[in-house]
Amino acid sequence: MRMVDIIQKKKSGLALTDEEIRFFVSGVVDGSIPDYQTSALLMAMCFVGMQAEEILSLTLSMVGSGETMNLSEIPGVKVDKHSTGGVGDKTTLVLAPLVAACGVPVAKMSGRGLGHTGGTIDKLESIPGFSTALTMSQFIHAVKTCGLAIAGQTGTLVPADKKLYALRDVTATISSIPLIAASIMSKKIASGADAIVLDVKVGSGSFMDTLDQASELARTMVRIGRDAGRKTVAVLTDMDQPLGYAIGNSLEVEEAIQVLRGSGPDDVRDLCLALGTEMLQLAGMGSTEACLEKLQDAIQSGAAIEKLKALVLSQGGDPSYIDHPEHLPKAKLCFPYHALFSGQIQRITSDHLGIASMLLGAGRRTKEEAIDPSAGILLIKKPGDNVSEGEVIAYLHSNNDKSLAEVTKLMDEAIVINTKKWTAQPLVLAVIA
Amino acid sequence: MRMVDIIQKKKSGLALTDEEIRFFVSGVVDGSIPDYQTSALLMAMCFVGMQAEEILSLTLSMVGSGETMNLSEIPGVKVDKHSTGGVGDKTTLVLAPLVAACGVPVAKMSGRGLGHTGGTIDKLESIPGFSTALTMSQFIHAVKTCGLAIAGQTGTLVPADKKLYALRDVTATISSIPLIAASIMSKKIASGADAIVLDVKVGSGSFMDTLDQASELARTMVRIGRDAGRKTVAVLTDMDQPLGYAIGNSLEVEEAIQVLRGSGPDDVRDLCLALGTEMLQLAGMGSTEACLEKLQDAIQSGAAIEKLKALVLSQGGDPSYIDHPEHLPKAKLCFPYHALFSGQIQRITSDHLGIASMLLGAGRRTKEEAIDPSAGILLIKKPGDNVSEGEVIAYLHSNNDKSLAEVTKLMDEAIVINTKKWTAQPLVLAVIA
Repeated sequence: MRMVDIIQKKKSGLALTDEEIRFFVSGVVDGSIPDYQTSALLMAMCFVGMQAEEILSLTLSMVGSGETMNLSEIPGVKVDKHSTGGVGDKTTLVLAPLVAACGVPVAKMSGRGLGHTGGTIDKLESIPGFSTALTMSQFIHAVKTCGLAIAGQTGTLVPADKKLYALRDVTATISSIPLIAASIMSKKIASGADAIVLDVKVGSGSFMDTLDQASELARTMVRIGRDAGRKTVAVLTDMDQPLGYAIGNSLEVEEAIQVLRGSGPDDVRDLCLALGTEMLQLAGMGSTEACLEKLQDAIQSGAAIEKLKALVLSQGGDPSYIDHPEHLPKAKLCFPYHALFSGQIQRITSDHLGIASMLLGAGRRTKEEAIDPSAGILLIKKPGDNVSEGEVIAYLHSNNDKSLAEVTKLMDEAIVINTKKWTAQPLVLAVIA
Repeated sequence: MRMVDIIQKKKSGLALTDEEIRFFVSGVVDGSIPDYQTSALLMAMCFVGMQAEEILSLTLSMVGSGETMNLSEIPGVKVDKHSTGGVGDKTTLVLAPLVAACGVPVAKMSGRGLGHTGGTIDKLESIPGFSTALTMSQFIHAVKTCGLAIAGQTGTLVPADKKLYALRDVTATISSIPLIAASIMSKKIASGADAIVLDVKVGSGSFMDTLDQASELARTMVRIGRDAGRKTVAVLTDMDQPLGYAIGNSLEVEEAIQVLRGSGPDDVRDLCLALGTEMLQLAGMGSTEACLEKLQDAIQSGAAIEKLKALVLSQGGDPSYIDHPEHLPKAKLCFPYHALFSGQIQRITSDHLGIASMLLGAGRRTKEEAIDPSAGILLIKKPGDNVSEGEVIAYLHSNNDKSLAEVTKLMDEAIVINTKKWTAQPLVLAVIA
């Protein structure tokens, strides 16, 4: 088998066989296929697309490229949750303890962030002492004793994805639904969960601009999950505006704590309840109504916030920060951002705010950059709110003012204020099972 | 400027600017752009295509990547000729001395062959002593004194094409009309001719399977030539059957000598007269009729064959081989190939015969392989000829019999014999100016 023939076949519009895809993935991992052939095939895949069988072959070949987690020692249905990523998305910080408090074991492998803000791992590390570097046996032990654990992805899981993603990033081949779906699902399947809930974001702050594209991505991933023997549900959710009010690492931890205590922004709570209901249902915890009630009870009874404290303690962090989030890392500087006009806020564009928070220090542009846990944006107003010219819309938190002019310009562009009548957009757009 | 943005732009269907294309080509040549980004862009170009302005920018950037020949010392209009390559294509061996004998200086840079048989350089080197390794000043001196010279392409001409072609070859990105056109025309323009005649082959033994594709390639190249200030004409010619009877290096030299002496196969002579007429016209030698008459006169008077002898002498070869081509290298073994059926030969597929001649030793599969100048196929019959079962259709010349079974199988597949009425196909299909 020759790689050039495989490229030619895909280029001419044909579907690759399972054998050809396995040859490709193993050649990528063992280095026998040079990067220039890999990138040519990836580009041809972007144009030609892939059939369901090819996407499944690709996903399973990628899973087989490294170690896989065996969670069978942990009793119960293990449910994983994945978000395609958005601005202000702190749902995992809420959902993991919330679902665990309902008796469903949560064994979550998570990534660091690239771009807007940190990932879940970065956010958790803004809690002093918290460690996400667990060995496989520590991780499983933590889930068994505490009911949940959140660990950073080890390098041994799906090495094919690491190589392919790095190459896609520099060859403009990220935006392909089959390739995105295989990348996400290979990591979820290798992580060993029995069931998977996918939060597929739609809108300006996400991978997928339109509902059509997001639906196709969701359907593709659900099919891969099902074909790989995992119960899988996708929830399409709006990411045209940031989720909640907080964007940044410790700022988002604080907001997640509020939600777990029964307060916090409506949109974050509603999304967590919607995703949590799907997770509990996949774990066999009863009807939609029963699952929703369990989640609400866990918040009201305090079981959810106690589970977060138990998680922090279990992974070496100081649980007192959960009771006193005001002690979490704080930026030295805080700049108010004022409304340019009077009127009703029509839009706050997610991707602009994502870039602004990165410039303030909350995100990293390259893998090597450090994240400032205290930096970020705290919105005071959201779309639908009326403001007067000069009123504070947000506070910009940073340890320096070097990007302030650029950030202010992004905020000016992101925030649309006028006198039209604003209409709310639903947060959950569709559920694909 | 970032290469990943250029790839993204082309991938999304947009045309690249001249600045972007120059950035790309110079980055390929100086090594600052890694091969995996280059191959991704090439694949995107295959799918999206390129506009005329982009193709011109690419061609001129490639020309600018290395040295260019300055032929201004040579008086007169210098006309170059290029064939997109076919099976049994010995036209340069005929045309160069024929046109030079009519008073038009021929300064021809030529390549070695990869695949079916050798290139013009390999064919000429089957004449003992003939050298094509000329320095620039030797080359120009030879044209000035002898009226023609044929030299191997130096490594300093269009280095961008060498890099891009090597990468296209292993990433299935050869078959793109803009990329083929830019590759051919960059070398022609860098070689310094004032006018260019392109022989674009159509059919089984060529790059372009259909007349539509070949016409598009021809139009694209003619436009590049014109936009680059070179008078350019393309002649579309049939390559569904081999040209002439001889396929192989010394076998083709012998056939070219026959044509220059006024005998030889009709199709080779007719094609050379058609291409030669275009060359003389571009050199300003009068009407079609006048140019054709000049070429026929040069053959009849013996001036053309004398010019070939002068070329051989000028480049270190022994001109006695031109008078006695039977002394050219001969293979030790010669196997007759017999008709499987009685009837009329309907087809002899070029590409099968090309591969067969390569297996006999006439071509090279990789750049490193040596060519056997004596190996090849000499057809005795051609489409339209009637044969009886068991009659000899061709002789297979080789210095070993290790590929004989495979070659015979290819011949069986290539040669279609039945009792239908055969109709001749015109050799010259169109002229695009």
